[in-house]
Amino acid sequence: MRNALLIPDLRELIRGGEAAALREFIEDQHPGRTAELIEDLEAEDGDALFRVLPPRDRAEVLSYLDTDSQNRIVESMPLREAAELLHLMSHDERADLVKRLDEDFVDGVLPHLAQAERDDIRRLTSYEPGTAGAVMTTDYVVLPAHIPVREALERLRHEAPDKETIYYCYIVDHNRRLIGFVSLRTLILSRRSAMIEDIMQRDVIFGRVDEDQESAARQIDKYDLIALPVVDTSNRLVGIITHDDAMDILRQEQTEDILKFGGVSPDPEADTAPYWSSTVPDVVRRRIKWLLMLFLAGELTIPVMEHFEWIKARFPVLDDFLPLLLGTGGNAGSQTVGTVIRGMSLGEIKAREAWRVVLREWLTGLCLGLMLGLVGVLYVRFRKGRPWGIALVVGLTLLGICTWSNTIGALVPLLARRMGIDPAVISAPFISTLVDATGLVIYFTTAITLLIKWGS
Amino acid sequence: MRNALLIPDLRELIRGGEAAALREFIEDQHPGRTAELIEDLEAEDGDALFRVLPPRDRAEVLSYLDTDSQNRIVESMPLREAAELLHLMSHDERADLVKRLDEDFVDGVLPHLAQAERDDIRRLTSYEPGTAGAVMTTDYVVLPAHIPVREALERLRHEAPDKETIYYCYIVDHNRRLIGFVSLRTLILSRRSAMIEDIMQRDVIFGRVDEDQESAARQIDKYDLIALPVVDTSNRLVGIITHDDAMDILRQEQTEDILKFGGVSPDPEADTAPYWSSTVPDVVRRRIKWLLMLFLAGELTIPVMEHFEWIKARFPVLDDFLPLLLGTGGNAGSQTVGTVIRGMSLGEIKAREAWRVVLREWLTGLCLGLMLGLVGVLYVRFRKGRPWGIALVVGLTLLGICTWSNTIGALVPLLARRMGIDPAVISAPFISTLVDATGLVIYFTTAITLLIKWGS
Repeated sequence: MRNALLIPDLRELIRGGEAAALREFIEDQHPGRTAELIEDLEAEDGDALFRVLPPRDRAEVLSYLDTDSQNRIVESMPLREAAELLHLMSHDERADLVKRLDEDFVDGVLPHLAQAERDDIRRLTSYEPGTAGAVMTTDYVVLPAHIPVREALERLRHEAPDKETIYYCYIVDHNRRLIGFVSLRTLILSRRSAMIEDIMQRDVIFGRVDEDQESAARQIDKYDLIALPVVDTSNRLVGIITHDDAMDILRQEQTEDILKFGGVSPDPEADTAPYWSSTVPDVVRRRIKWLLMLFLAGELTIPVMEHFEWIKARFPVLDDFLPLLLGTGGNAGSQTVGTVIRGMSLGEIKAREAWRVVLREWLTGLCLGLMLGLVGVLYVRFRKGRPWGIALVVGLTLLGICTWSNTIGALVPLLARRMGIDPAVISAPFISTLVDATGLVIYFTTAITLLIKWGS
Repeated sequence: MRNALLIPDLRELIRGGEAAALREFIEDQHPGRTAELIEDLEAEDGDALFRVLPPRDRAEVLSYLDTDSQNRIVESMPLREAAELLHLMSHDERADLVKRLDEDFVDGVLPHLAQAERDDIRRLTSYEPGTAGAVMTTDYVVLPAHIPVREALERLRHEAPDKETIYYCYIVDHNRRLIGFVSLRTLILSRRSAMIEDIMQRDVIFGRVDEDQESAARQIDKYDLIALPVVDTSNRLVGIITHDDAMDILRQEQTEDILKFGGVSPDPEADTAPYWSSTVPDVVRRRIKWLLMLFLAGELTIPVMEHFEWIKARFPVLDDFLPLLLGTGGNAGSQTVGTVIRGMSLGEIKAREAWRVVLREWLTGLCLGLMLGLVGVLYVRFRKGRPWGIALVVGLTLLGICTWSNTIGALVPLLARRMGIDPAVISAPFISTLVDATGLVIYFTTAITLLIKWGS
């Protein structure tokens, strides 16, 4: 509850039917704040508050509501009113909403919209989810090349109320091919008599309609754009993606890396699936794949354990340190993968630097291993009171395991990238599992070398 | 190398000293692309290309260069030229650059700047790193409330070249207190004779100068702003943060969650430390803390192993499955933490939903455990040829460990948040370590119950 103090007053006004007072209350407020109030109220009161809003504000406020509230509010409206609302919404959000609404309801609403709007909705909803086409909007400003700035500004003034942004204007030829771009800033700065074709920038950064939404969003991020134009295969302008949508896309994609790192395959069908909208069977399906694969890979530890049965039989105390040693190896590996994946996802680690990274992580692992190894020796000798031989085996194993798991933790994601695999799928569990079997080998061979070969 | 085809031609033009041709080549290009070319060329050629640029373009291109190139290029310039460049740069980037440059060089350059600019640099560099103040810029547009739109547009035209953005204008009173906001869109749409005070929005969303940069960036994200005004403790307007900087901040913070999840404490001094700029001792220091803490927590496994020595002595084959079982528990826990942390960081999991989350993850763990348990039983019985008793112990342990680690994996980050601890520090290694000791208990008590109590 973000507005706990306001809610009781607001509820009273709503239940008293005081439309004028309510309208005044929210009139000068950012639509995002009004949306918060609606979400914080009980559904019925929230819906009543929404109905008080003037039509254009409704479209704005709706765009800040969560999808459940959007669906509920729109589906409870009379068809004609819902159509009016769709008419005023930004085109990308309208298309997203229509995709979520009940089909029968949509069939009832669409006839109330103009043919051009129905076509627009149909086009925008037809793009493959996850592509630039599916997130772009069609309410952008287009200008011809051969008009003066004066006329361009005049057009902007007329078109502004219906456009997502008027700060970037796109210039197209008679085939609607994108040939240039001019910002409102440039328009304001130019002489009123200058021709658009003389002031427009011809080197336009653009995306393609079938391109991955993430790569389009990255262009917006990289070049600090307010919007990115999107063209079809014939270079015709078909939409724009705005900076705020790019931010949402990048947030989804980046937090998805945490999922992958935790060892969950992202859902290719809905790579923006919110926590609550996936069912438990969905979640189980996405997780069991990795758990099974890791289980089968982890199986490798069994023959290793069997193979070294005899040394454990001679020194049963070795067994006590097993979980701790393997756990530490997995921890060190996780740290390295986390660091390397982040460096790659921020673009800090370039392909040609791969070997420097491995060397650096190896060195880090060596330092960490020396420190932990020393702690291990002292711990086993003095706190657990075990013989020096066992203490040394544990210490050297820690050194070996840390160095090894740091090297593996750097090498594997870098190799994955080189092989064209998303390095973010190299999860913490993946590295722990890799380190488990090899960690056992390190432990037992160290024990054999120190306790049997040198001991005798 | 992003522009492999262009580089040889460009190099030839540069080495031939063909300034006019070079200028024409890059004239109409986005400054971000020119910056890419400079980075892809050898340092000397890149610097030469930079020197060909007209002054205002230099400032633009510089802002897209990586920090190493920025430092190198600026420090190799004559003092007067460097001052001219600083004069033309956006104020936040100028302050960042000055912080990085050699101190003696800065002392030489500053006297060439106007007093107001020196003051501006001093002010912007004085804010605590990580606060809104440290990332804001001071080149924004301010308008008085009592002028008509006509005059406001006239002012904008004069000020536009020196401002970071002219799309949002802020209205202040005579004490520079922020009292309103008007977008260029609203200005364009309003009658020329309308007064600013009548068209401005009075409910302005703003940040505070000492606020965390992440929370300021989140406002920009949440309300889809192009810029967020920043005020000091007396509500005086002191700067703005633009959408592109907000995107950079959020990317840094979100990818930082991967670091934490991997078990690395982020550096509080430099929470945006790039991969290469931290030294190996820095990295070791940041990682050893967690490794040691986890080592000490993992130590708990030793008494557990000792305590159950006797059952292992009676059924030595139990030992072989230990690494696999503990590994699987850690994997299932990692998946859950990853999912829950992501849900919280996207704001999908609200505080009041904590119990629903735990229940849901418990149920997921139960399903996963049933599936893995079944696989485990069949695997141990038929592939490893062990007796049904052992197979059942392994299967039931998988069921128990998966359910338990999923519950823990949901519970711990939710509890952390409730206690005001950043849930992202609940790392995959943290959960694996927690699960290790408890997993052993589950394994051995299952074995005792099935093999000793029921077996006899």
